[in-house]
Amino acid sequence: MRRHALDGVDVIDLGQIYNGAYCSLMLSYLGADVTKVEPPFGEPLRSRVEDGEPPELIMLNSSKDGITLNLKEERGKELFKELVRDADVVVENFAVGTMDRFGLGYETLSEINPELIYAHGSGFGESGPRSERLAMDLIVQAVGGVMDVTGFPDGPPVKTGIAAGDFLGGIHLAAGVLAALYQRERTGEGQFVEASMYDAVYPSLMSQLASYFKDEDVPPRTGNRHSGLAKCPYNAYATSDGHVAILCASDRHWHRLLDVIGRDDLVGAPEYETNVKRLQHIDEIDEIIEEWTRDHTREEVETAMLEAGIPCGAVQTVEEVIHDPHLETREMVNEIDHPDYDDPIRVPGSPIRLSESAMPDIDPSPSKGRDNYRIYRERLGLSEGEIRKLEDEGVI
Amino acid sequence: MRRHALDGVDVIDLGQIYNGAYCSLMLSYLGADVTKVEPPFGEPLRSRVEDGEPPELIMLNSSKDGITLNLKEERGKELFKELVRDADVVVENFAVGTMDRFGLGYETLSEINPELIYAHGSGFGESGPRSERLAMDLIVQAVGGVMDVTGFPDGPPVKTGIAAGDFLGGIHLAAGVLAALYQRERTGEGQFVEASMYDAVYPSLMSQLASYFKDEDVPPRTGNRHSGLAKCPYNAYATSDGHVAILCASDRHWHRLLDVIGRDDLVGAPEYETNVKRLQHIDEIDEIIEEWTRDHTREEVETAMLEAGIPCGAVQTVEEVIHDPHLETREMVNEIDHPDYDDPIRVPGSPIRLSESAMPDIDPSPSKGRDNYRIYRERLGLSEGEIRKLEDEGVI
Repeated sequence: MRRHALDGVDVIDLGQIYNGAYCSLMLSYLGADVTKVEPPFGEPLRSRVEDGEPPELIMLNSSKDGITLNLKEERGKELFKELVRDADVVVENFAVGTMDRFGLGYETLSEINPELIYAHGSGFGESGPRSERLAMDLIVQAVGGVMDVTGFPDGPPVKTGIAAGDFLGGIHLAAGVLAALYQRERTGEGQFVEASMYDAVYPSLMSQLASYFKDEDVPPRTGNRHSGLAKCPYNAYATSDGHVAILCASDRHWHRLLDVIGRDDLVGAPEYETNVKRLQHIDEIDEIIEEWTRDHTREEVETAMLEAGIPCGAVQTVEEVIHDPHLETREMVNEIDHPDYDDPIRVPGSPIRLSESAMPDIDPSPSKGRDNYRIYRERLGLSEGEIRKLEDEGVI
Repeated sequence: MRRHALDGVDVIDLGQIYNGAYCSLMLSYLGADVTKVEPPFGEPLRSRVEDGEPPELIMLNSSKDGITLNLKEERGKELFKELVRDADVVVENFAVGTMDRFGLGYETLSEINPELIYAHGSGFGESGPRSERLAMDLIVQAVGGVMDVTGFPDGPPVKTGIAAGDFLGGIHLAAGVLAALYQRERTGEGQFVEASMYDAVYPSLMSQLASYFKDEDVPPRTGNRHSGLAKCPYNAYATSDGHVAILCASDRHWHRLLDVIGRDDLVGAPEYETNVKRLQHIDEIDEIIEEWTRDHTREEVETAMLEAGIPCGAVQTVEEVIHDPHLETREMVNEIDHPDYDDPIRVPGSPIRLSESAMPDIDPSPSKGRDNYRIYRERLGLSEGEIRKLEDEGVI
């Protein structure tokens, strides 16, 4: 049987909503044994639907075991400490200080298990003046500059529709856990790992940071144009049935584009000869291109541009993305049967691909407490009667 | 001296522009020895300025050594193979197939060094119908659904201003390298690692994917409102001098907000009692809030909301983000002297924080070929005369 990178790595996953859950999903897909631990009333994501399992929860918790545990109860704290004793990793993304208030902070847990890697995902991190602030993705996008750089120059700042803070934060946290696992091979010791959403978003402002340091007078928001207004053509152009993104990385691309849109007459035009000159006529050029794209379908434009070797891509709807054969081929979108859904549901695979560590088969995400009886018996040696009693007392 | 997670890990970095360079920057910040290898005419990012070092390049290549090498020359290929013989990791983000065309693909290099971890970042990945396509961040945002879900319902799709594809792809690739390093501790073998920008962006569409599977009739773009239109209030509100993001995660937040804006008269109003009811009056509610925020400064609004415990954050400009004391305290923004700049320049730190692996001191990014003499002497035992000859012949 093929090995997985994280075979034998045991993860206790207090991750919730997007950020922490994504971190442990990646560890699970790399082969770790991940046990999702929810409070008896369920993690916050569950409240997004009245009945059953919300699709977000299903998509972010595949291939995890699921148990319940009340960390506010004394007995719950004891059980948690017992679980941690043999674990390799704890992942959590509660507000800063929450686990300390439970008496289950890193200091306490590392005394019980000095090899433990404790990973904390948060909005603003463990230190710094903003660290105590409540931080959902929208707040991080606002404070982090993402909104300021998104939208049109004459319009308001706009959030990006993707949950950039949650996912950039979550995958940086996963990378931190992996680095700590590697370091532990040398030292035999665990450590505290953290990644904040605000920190994780900052480097992705790269184009705007560069503009700032070049002291150029670039508007904060450039719509679909180049973030530094440093390339032309570079935009999303309207077609008869949607938009298509096109960019010319070289003058050769520009000449080919003129050929595609039937404007060979402009090939020698001195005012459009170089990227720098084209930038001075950016409105004109975008209009010349859109004049042609408007009369064609999205697919016609994309096909023509790609055949000519010009970087181009249709603006796909989410529904098109979900059904993109490319993502299906790459097992990024996997149709699975889930006990809570009549129809098959599509769950993400892992963007991390290792040739010698195949992604494990995807198991459906656990319903609340699905694996209580098995896990508490196998890991802590509790009897069925004891487990039932814990349930009755609201401890699990 | 304190250890770093990746002490002794040797990385040959062909990464360029944003995606690959960010992957190896994270490895460098975790303590790896990273040698940036550029063609003699420099990597593509260098063409963004006429003279000197572009700030993007400086920000993404701190603490790396820098050498030049022409992989199209026979002698260049030989030298590269010699470098790889003792390396742990190669990182590259050329178009799919480029290294194979150089005769330096994974198959070849892994024969020379079976312990080698070879990491490839790309737009669409090594497999699937789109794999050969040219993919810059804009194209991935278009095809990947990021543009479709960003912007206002009555406006066009909008790209997000951050380079979401490059950075999500790059950090997933770094996580893959770290997982492969950990696996190698068990197996003694290297492997091929890949992460594509398109794959990496897909999970971050989580809210829209969930809406799709819930079969709700949510518009693809919701401006600054909740992506699933499932929370109210949740928006960016205009103030007298900018915008502020505010959201109510609970009815308690809503009551406090009414208190802050002096509309206690609405506390008992049955039509606003629950989140579900508020959603039916979303325009009204946003107007009630903005009526108040418009008459106050961004700072006044933020302070009042935070004091009342309501999730809130000012929409900061990039300049404000760069100078945010929070990021400075956390060493996410580090002022360094760079030989090519008169004034100090601010470079990002690492969002990955490990308590037992301090971030190394940040060294200025290398100018093109800065370390040729030292590296070719130290690593390959070449003499000064041999190195000068290689320069003259255009091999390095």
